[in-house]
Amino acid sequence: MKGDNMSEKKIPYKIYLTEEEMPKAWYNLRADMDNKPAPLLNPGTLKPATLEELEHVFCTELAKQELNETDAYIEIPQEIRDFYKMFRPSPLVRAYCLEKKLDTPAKIYYKFEGNNTSGSHKLNSAIAQAYYAKKQGLKGVTTETGAGQWGTALSMACSYFDLDCKVFMVKSSYNQKPQRKEVMRTYGASVTPSPSMETNVGRAINEQFPNGNGSLGCAISEAVEKATSEEGYRYVLGSVLNQVLLHQSIIGLETMTALEKYNEKADIIIGCAGGGSNLGGLISPFVRDKIKGKDDYRIIAVEPASCPSLTRGIYAYDFCDTGKVCPLAKMYTLGHDFMPSPSHAGGLRYHGMSSVLSQLKADNIIEATSVTQTEVFAAAEQFARVEGILPAPESSHAIKVAIDEAMKCKETGEEKTIVFGLTGTGYFDMYAYEDFNNGTMTDYIPTDDDIKESLKNVPEVNA
Amino acid sequence: MKGDNMSEKKIPYKIYLTEEEMPKAWYNLRADMDNKPAPLLNPGTLKPATLEELEHVFCTELAKQELNETDAYIEIPQEIRDFYKMFRPSPLVRAYCLEKKLDTPAKIYYKFEGNNTSGSHKLNSAIAQAYYAKKQGLKGVTTETGAGQWGTALSMACSYFDLDCKVFMVKSSYNQKPQRKEVMRTYGASVTPSPSMETNVGRAINEQFPNGNGSLGCAISEAVEKATSEEGYRYVLGSVLNQVLLHQSIIGLETMTALEKYNEKADIIIGCAGGGSNLGGLISPFVRDKIKGKDDYRIIAVEPASCPSLTRGIYAYDFCDTGKVCPLAKMYTLGHDFMPSPSHAGGLRYHGMSSVLSQLKADNIIEATSVTQTEVFAAAEQFARVEGILPAPESSHAIKVAIDEAMKCKETGEEKTIVFGLTGTGYFDMYAYEDFNNGTMTDYIPTDDDIKESLKNVPEVNA
Repeated sequence: MKGDNMSEKKIPYKIYLTEEEMPKAWYNLRADMDNKPAPLLNPGTLKPATLEELEHVFCTELAKQELNETDAYIEIPQEIRDFYKMFRPSPLVRAYCLEKKLDTPAKIYYKFEGNNTSGSHKLNSAIAQAYYAKKQGLKGVTTETGAGQWGTALSMACSYFDLDCKVFMVKSSYNQKPQRKEVMRTYGASVTPSPSMETNVGRAINEQFPNGNGSLGCAISEAVEKATSEEGYRYVLGSVLNQVLLHQSIIGLETMTALEKYNEKADIIIGCAGGGSNLGGLISPFVRDKIKGKDDYRIIAVEPASCPSLTRGIYAYDFCDTGKVCPLAKMYTLGHDFMPSPSHAGGLRYHGMSSVLSQLKADNIIEATSVTQTEVFAAAEQFARVEGILPAPESSHAIKVAIDEAMKCKETGEEKTIVFGLTGTGYFDMYAYEDFNNGTMTDYIPTDDDIKESLKNVPEVNA
Repeated sequence: MKGDNMSEKKIPYKIYLTEEEMPKAWYNLRADMDNKPAPLLNPGTLKPATLEELEHVFCTELAKQELNETDAYIEIPQEIRDFYKMFRPSPLVRAYCLEKKLDTPAKIYYKFEGNNTSGSHKLNSAIAQAYYAKKQGLKGVTTETGAGQWGTALSMACSYFDLDCKVFMVKSSYNQKPQRKEVMRTYGASVTPSPSMETNVGRAINEQFPNGNGSLGCAISEAVEKATSEEGYRYVLGSVLNQVLLHQSIIGLETMTALEKYNEKADIIIGCAGGGSNLGGLISPFVRDKIKGKDDYRIIAVEPASCPSLTRGIYAYDFCDTGKVCPLAKMYTLGHDFMPSPSHAGGLRYHGMSSVLSQLKADNIIEATSVTQTEVFAAAEQFARVEGILPAPESSHAIKVAIDEAMKCKETGEEKTIVFGLTGTGYFDMYAYEDFNNGTMTDYIPTDDDIKESLKNVPEVNA
């Protein structure tokens, strides 16, 4: 088995595309889906949200992208393509050292998005959203951030286009990651712990849960309220939305081009899933080919056992935020009141899931699984020691399942090709690694009653 | 000026060599120097240190490399070349965005060494030193670390080869950077704040300076004592030594190949200099061509005003460590007792300088300048906002001078090509950026009397 991989050896450790090979258009998967994701609903009328309604919250061009289910390809403006060149193309890495360590016949590849200061793939969409905000002549944007990667990415993008950037940061992350806050400040952003006393929503939640850790759903409400109450501001979001998956399609497009360049074909594609931005971007061109019957792929969404929307939630219309100021989305949800435990994967603590991914899951085009954080960190450490990259807790969910699949190949002898998304680095998560290194890490898994309770408040609009 | 750069446009933002184009041998500059650096002296006999003497402290193969002034090229073992592929080749980046921001006719390139978990170029030598230790059948190695980058790099390398790794970390860095410590622990290293109570040297220094911040010179003494008193251990060092500059030559060799690939020729080469590992590696093939009269380059070493060995020290034999257990080296030194202020560039707080670089400075082949930390951080922030990378405080010394040189070109209209070494990222230095962001950063510059005082103890062996 080990002797006959002479041709394999020609595949470099890292496959970099040239700048000319980088995608010139994003891919809009919705255009090719047979069952389109359900439309967003206006929270007041419960009717599909119109462009006019969305424009109050989002930049106009982004609202158009949000509603666009017809154009399969949308050109990437030149300014964004130039910015991309500062940190892209990202490498598709052949995990030779991990394969050797696992002694598996499987080929393992990972698309590494962590080689930029935001430390993750989030910059792909941040720069697009900042660009459209600038083009619209806005003063600035507001947003929320969980793990801090989206906030960092957005502050970098806003700094580049000289836009004001107001970030509401989930309180547990704010306290655990003062370094993240400082990176955002270095790029000129203001950072407020959420729930804050700066918004009606924040004050109300602070009253209800005086010592709460905050949640993404709550921080979203605050950021939306701030954007809609200040002149010249709009709200931007780093995940869940269709527009975000559109921008993140660059991950999947580059991955597919890189594989084709070396005549490789993936069998299994794996990604972590919080709101779905990385996974949705990574798999989009592969899902296209699967839908069209051109190729088959097993696609696995990995979520934390502490916040298992795809694996234990229901598929229904729900509010995207705790404060119910955002449109409703049809998605796998644990209920907009679901308060996940303060786990170390701050970026995967969202109660819902992208409606694109939700529809793909409902149609059995993708599958989902959940893993506990102690097993995730064990996989992270194993990976770090052989592949050199210290992964983010979020990304490590995908590592865990990739290793599991590679070990299954070892048992069966199958030479499968596994591709997973390594969304980012864990440099700002060392308190989490410390918890693991000290042996004090615990797993929190909600009971059926916990979930039943939070699902009670899911609205009955599922007509 | 802006219109005629059609051909320029073909230079990508990032030049990556292919894995085949990576160097297969390190370059040993000493072989081509007319005036060789002075030999290390045995601290007991004050005679040139022999291989037998060095072997007690260093791995045998590394001791041989330390003394080798004849072989210009030394083959890189295959195992090391394979490890290099996990994080190399590193990109040579064309700083288009910075050039545009500065509105300069200069072309600016930087060789970015920060895309690995150690966050710097240190991994280039760490993996080589761990390899030779393993090959010699050792149990483990000891070392010191200032900023933490070397310690992290070594712990990664030791983890890869399954070697024990004991790190003495300068106390000020240990306290400022708990995350760094945790990265090393994740890779299985033990980390002790220095001065510690674990060694004779540490106990003595603790007695003399009960609340001291520690220094590299002191941590080196501790690590050497530990290595020489435990069976199966040797000491390894991340800078200053000839062997380290040899391994780091891969930076310069890659840089030169990348420039040649695009028909570019550097006019000015700039690097930060603490012990000299990055600068020495970056400039080695360029110095070769300068010495041989093939090409001319302006080469600038940039050091912190708080620890200005090249610009304000004397060129003399001095101890490499505070505890005087190491051999003496002839170098630019501020005196082995010099206690630099607790500045944010922990990696540049060494009292001496590589004897290779010292000799080049004495022969006017390179020049040196010093900069204050507030101006360094202003340059770092400016760079981060346009180039996307949040640089390490150490690396930012080179950025500051590169920007200065580019601004001179703006005044004169000269289209010079500037290449600087961006040694690493500042993700673990956010307390330093916070100091800058809060406007509380101060500059410490030693007085002439400070330096005169510490130079008193430089031994009189300068025959």
